[in-house]
Amino acid sequence: MIDLRSDTVTRPTDGMRKAMAEAEVGDDVYAEDPTTRELEERTAELFGHEAGLFVPSGTMGNQIGMRLVAEPGQEVLCDADAHVVTYEMGAAAAIFGLSTRTVVSDRGLLDADALIAQVRPQGDSYLTGTAAIAVENTHNRGFGRVQPLGELQKLWDWSRGAGVAVHLDGARIWNAHVASGVDLATYGRLADTASVCFSKGLGTPVGSVLLGSAQRMATARLWRKRLGGGMRQVGVLAAACLYALDHHLPRLGEDHENAQHLAERLGVDPASVETNMVVLDDVEAPVLAEAAKAQGVLVSQVSPSRVRLVTHLDVDRTGIDRAADVLTELLDR
Amino acid sequence: MIDLRSDTVTRPTDGMRKAMAEAEVGDDVYAEDPTTRELEERTAELFGHEAGLFVPSGTMGNQIGMRLVAEPGQEVLCDADAHVVTYEMGAAAAIFGLSTRTVVSDRGLLDADALIAQVRPQGDSYLTGTAAIAVENTHNRGFGRVQPLGELQKLWDWSRGAGVAVHLDGARIWNAHVASGVDLATYGRLADTASVCFSKGLGTPVGSVLLGSAQRMATARLWRKRLGGGMRQVGVLAAACLYALDHHLPRLGEDHENAQHLAERLGVDPASVETNMVVLDDVEAPVLAEAAKAQGVLVSQVSPSRVRLVTHLDVDRTGIDRAADVLTELLDR
Amino acid sequence: MIDLRSDTVTRPTDGMRKAMAEAEVGDDVYAEDPTTRELEERTAELFGHEAGLFVPSGTMGNQIGMRLVAEPGQEVLCDADAHVVTYEMGAAAAIFGLSTRTVVSDRGLLDADALIAQVRPQGDSYLTGTAAIAVENTHNRGFGRVQPLGELQKLWDWSRGAGVAVHLDGARIWNAHVASGVDLATYGRLADTASVCFSKGLGTPVGSVLLGSAQRMATARLWRKRLGGGMRQVGVLAAACLYALDHHLPRLGEDHENAQHLAERLGVDPASVETNMVVLDDVEAPVLAEAAKAQGVLVSQVSPSRVRLVTHLDVDRTGIDRAADVLTELLDR
Amino acid sequence: MIDLRSDTVTRPTDGMRKAMAEAEVGDDVYAEDPTTRELEERTAELFGHEAGLFVPSGTMGNQIGMRLVAEPGQEVLCDADAHVVTYEMGAAAAIFGLSTRTVVSDRGLLDADALIAQVRPQGDSYLTGTAAIAVENTHNRGFGRVQPLGELQKLWDWSRGAGVAVHLDGARIWNAHVASGVDLATYGRLADTASVCFSKGLGTPVGSVLLGSAQRMATARLWRKRLGGGMRQVGVLAAACLYALDHHLPRLGEDHENAQHLAERLGVDPASVETNMVVLDDVEAPVLAEAAKAQGVLVSQVSPSRVRLVTHLDVDRTGIDRAADVLTELLDR
Repeated sequence: MIDLRSDTVTRPTDGMRKAMAEAEVGDDVYAEDPTTRELEERTAELFGHEAGLFVPSGTMGNQIGMRLVAEPGQEVLCDADAHVVTYEMGAAAAIFGLSTRTVVSDRGLLDADALIAQVRPQGDSYLTGTAAIAVENTHNRGFGRVQPLGELQKLWDWSRGAGVAVHLDGARIWNAHVASGVDLATYGRLADTASVCFSKGLGTPVGSVLLGSAQRMATARLWRKRLGGGMRQVGVLAAACLYALDHHLPRLGEDHENAQHLAERLGVDPASVETNMVVLDDVEAPVLAEAAKAQGVLVSQVSPSRVRLVTHLDVDRTGIDRAADVLTELLDR
Repeated sequence: MIDLRSDTVTRPTDGMRKAMAEAEVGDDVYAEDPTTRELEERTAELFGHEAGLFVPSGTMGNQIGMRLVAEPGQEVLCDADAHVVTYEMGAAAAIFGLSTRTVVSDRGLLDADALIAQVRPQGDSYLTGTAAIAVENTHNRGFGRVQPLGELQKLWDWSRGAGVAVHLDGARIWNAHVASGVDLATYGRLADTASVCFSKGLGTPVGSVLLGSAQRMATARLWRKRLGGGMRQVGVLAAACLYALDHHLPRLGEDHENAQHLAERLGVDPASVETNMVVLDDVEAPVLAEAAKAQGVLVSQVSPSRVRLVTHLDVDRTGIDRAADVLTELLDR
Repeated sequence: MIDLRSDTVTRPTDGMRKAMAEAEVGDDVYAEDPTTRELEERTAELFGHEAGLFVPSGTMGNQIGMRLVAEPGQEVLCDADAHVVTYEMGAAAAIFGLSTRTVVSDRGLLDADALIAQVRPQGDSYLTGTAAIAVENTHNRGFGRVQPLGELQKLWDWSRGAGVAVHLDGARIWNAHVASGVDLATYGRLADTASVCFSKGLGTPVGSVLLGSAQRMATARLWRKRLGGGMRQVGVLAAACLYALDHHLPRLGEDHENAQHLAERLGVDPASVETNMVVLDDVEAPVLAEAAKAQGVLVSQVSPSRVRLVTHLDVDRTGIDRAADVLTELLDR
Repeated sequence: MIDLRSDTVTRPTDGMRKAMAEAEVGDDVYAEDPTTRELEERTAELFGHEAGLFVPSGTMGNQIGMRLVAEPGQEVLCDADAHVVTYEMGAAAAIFGLSTRTVVSDRGLLDADALIAQVRPQGDSYLTGTAAIAVENTHNRGFGRVQPLGELQKLWDWSRGAGVAVHLDGARIWNAHVASGVDLATYGRLADTASVCFSKGLGTPVGSVLLGSAQRMATARLWRKRLGGGMRQVGVLAAACLYALDHHLPRLGEDHENAQHLAERLGVDPASVETNMVVLDDVEAPVLAEAAKAQGVLVSQVSPSRVRLVTHLDVDRTGIDRAADVLTELLDR
């Protein structure tokens, strides 16, 4: 099977498995797991944040991240297609009492002015005050779109004076970094809290790191425990993340090249492919997905007329070409 | 002072005060207040619902109403200017764990198709399922706009097959009824739960009634207690509501005529005034409000360039003309 | 009917109704109701607190009061029979995310040491930190028990050093004051937040006032709105409360004398009756309640073998004697 | 270091690491991880439940388990020392709106009658209704106490008629099984939902399985995602759990023997040691812990005068004897 549904489906490589098997571990609920500590510190350093906290998923990273900068009864503003309001099952409201409000965007593209225009003041007797703005980079439902640094900077600069926090959903920030050449630390500096994932393009089985100030991470640790995300010898997972930083981050550009190649093969405008996602529009998604599956290619149905293809380290150029062959024939392109 | 900020500012009339002073009362937490029971039953009958529950505010009516048809982790869909997401302080998320998601509307006008297009399925592994749609009639931030019966009917018909509930924020449903001639029961039939207020155009000091099935109202009673809305000899307030149904509902049309008159005097397009609210756009709101206040006229600043005037039973035609004199001069119209 | 079920069943007197009918009112959501402001200020002064906030019920007063001094994930400690954990429908957890934990008491009697011994530290990685202790005076399920001033003082003194707040559920603090002779301000000084009710012994239809610092009351106002407790011309209710302070508080001692008299008539140890509640133990509660009702006397069944009788301003000495006649015969005492 | 603080500190053995490194994996958010499915099915079968769900911690297993059988506003009843109310940071209230109420027990020993006596009815207008009772077996703060089968059965039999659910916190149910000889399925049958952990005595790095009906597990899967507990190729962790069932469960009795031996060496009544925990009372806990640590033995301070020693697979008989030497000398026993 050539699985192009998502970059979450990657299986650990032999090298990664070896790193996991040899990981030095301790009880991380007691903060005694050396490998997890190393990962937290190294990730924090990469993004220019004071501290990090390993969490079992990007959802937990995002939700705790937003909770750190917003109180029950306040709202977090983001774009209408953001992962945090679309794919996280209403967690912000359900578990933390946070309202979310959204602004329609051009396929996820950050528009700082549009968001700022919607901000509502704290302390009003009627209005739900805006405590934070969440930004997603790259943007999942925007099909891997990279956020413009200028917009990120504009939002950040404005936010400092406004007393509004910025949370970065950096599940695929690595792809943004590779595609744009912008430093991870530059992205990191433009957010109060950030969640970055190792289980997407970096190819680990499990794991995200939440970033922020040391004080916020101490609070985050309590919320992680409360949500049931405190784990014991979790260094076995953290070791995979450290391995991924050394061995998979440097190769992430290949996924982008493969996506470009796949777009060309399928007649999709390559300019629309900024990182590792290719979108096929105006197709009969269920029919195409079924037929492709029958020929060994898995794709993701985003809507009845839209299919998404995601490149990642488990599919090499040969696999990409094989998928292109199957899809080209099915699409009669 | 001629207070045109809102129809919430009305003071009880002598007749209403007398009705309150003579109200027969009992302990309503024991469900033994005869006047409250009468109000609940009469209101339910007016709107064709099985049962009603007196609540201290429209906010409590709306929030419990939505909670009755949505569970923590689910979402309620409404327009972006709805009172329930704008002026109720994030209650849905904060106290009930409900997500809210919005669709931008044309000044609050119900667009059934636009809402239906945003509905998300229940039981999905990622998506926040849509449990209910909330409709506001008349629409406060839409400046008293009356919702088209056809759209209400379309939404309702669709909702039955889709397993999505409809909640009516009927804070000013009385104005819609008077303006459109549509029966209250017709409006009532197109909603699973509804909250109607007596403290706006009907002029009582306090009080709303939540409507729905008898079973839902039994659950609502428990939520009302939990939120601290269970009151004792509350018949003193319910008596004012009954009085308002008899004496103030029949005269509500006068407020609409006064609004038309005021619009004409101020050069505002009368067609934009559907009920009891007049909007002045492209003004310097703070300056105008301050200057008008100095001359005894209170207006509401909705934005830096927009002012709202609301007619109600405490301002008669003479007062309207006096306000028009003041504002005309200030606006140099 | 002689209704001894609770002091909540009192109906407003003619004088009180007159005060309500003549109340000067304004829109209290805009903080413009002069009568409500007068009540809030007068009550705050009585208890030596900086500010007050009118709320529709003691439940709302208690719950917001506790929320002001505890955050989601923290706990409030109290005795196992406290109203806040017994009769408020799990509100603390359900709407505010607060844990409650209890210590078994001797019929509600405050035991400062026992509570202090259960306090858990903040910031621990496992434990639910104790943010506040709630005290009830007089104690409802303790049948009107007055809390010893020494214990209140001991708890307060300890709490200052421990960073633990004290909330007073003062629903019937007036009875404690009358019975003990301790100043209201003395009781008030020993609590960070307090909720006092006017709808019990003071005989108003509706109303409680939450007390605390000006800053906390500003926050409380926002929570009150969020919970749906913001009301408009609520001066009609506040006027009753002001009337009660002038006319009903001075006569509250009569209820205590009536309770003593009733206890004597029924052979109950008068020493067990500290304020306005008399308890009959070892009775067949359903049988007794039914039989008494048939003869025009209403009593409250607290358990299958326990009945509670509460004296209040709607039952005078003649009524007490009539009830005693009925119950004595039924009990064959 | 001989670490006797807890059985959570165990590090994966070589065999376990090998099993993890070779695990067949898939994307478990898509329910495609074969090893996780095998673990869920095998665990469900062991306990006679319909289905299982892998969760990252016992806290998540317990909290979701309780949420499945209780609604916001309802309460879960348990003993005052239960892990779910002591060591899970107020999660039930904070994230799910569930009240918890407790009954003081004899060192965690289940007393069915005492719990049943505290149950409150659903649907009451004041009381917080009891939806479920949580039982812990073995009992952590009861120092590894095994719950009597007769009490479990009595509670279960009663619960069926009462409409009250039973949740089993089976973090250390394996120890109960080994100590009592009672089948896992027998324990499983006496609970509606159960959470069992592999990261305590069974020695895996991470992992618990929640058990219940297939329908409840489908709901649990949604809550797990919402809380951020959905992980990807989590088979690497599940493989360790399967390995533990095969290789560590059969040897669990050794831990109990070591605990008996340690108790004898330390002069602790062996009858008080039912599984793998030994308690030293009337000691200066901080002093003893510090001194022991200096000599290479780690113990857990439960209170200022109480120390806990937990045996597990990382400490063999030689280690136990070495710890006993150190402690005996320090205690001068």
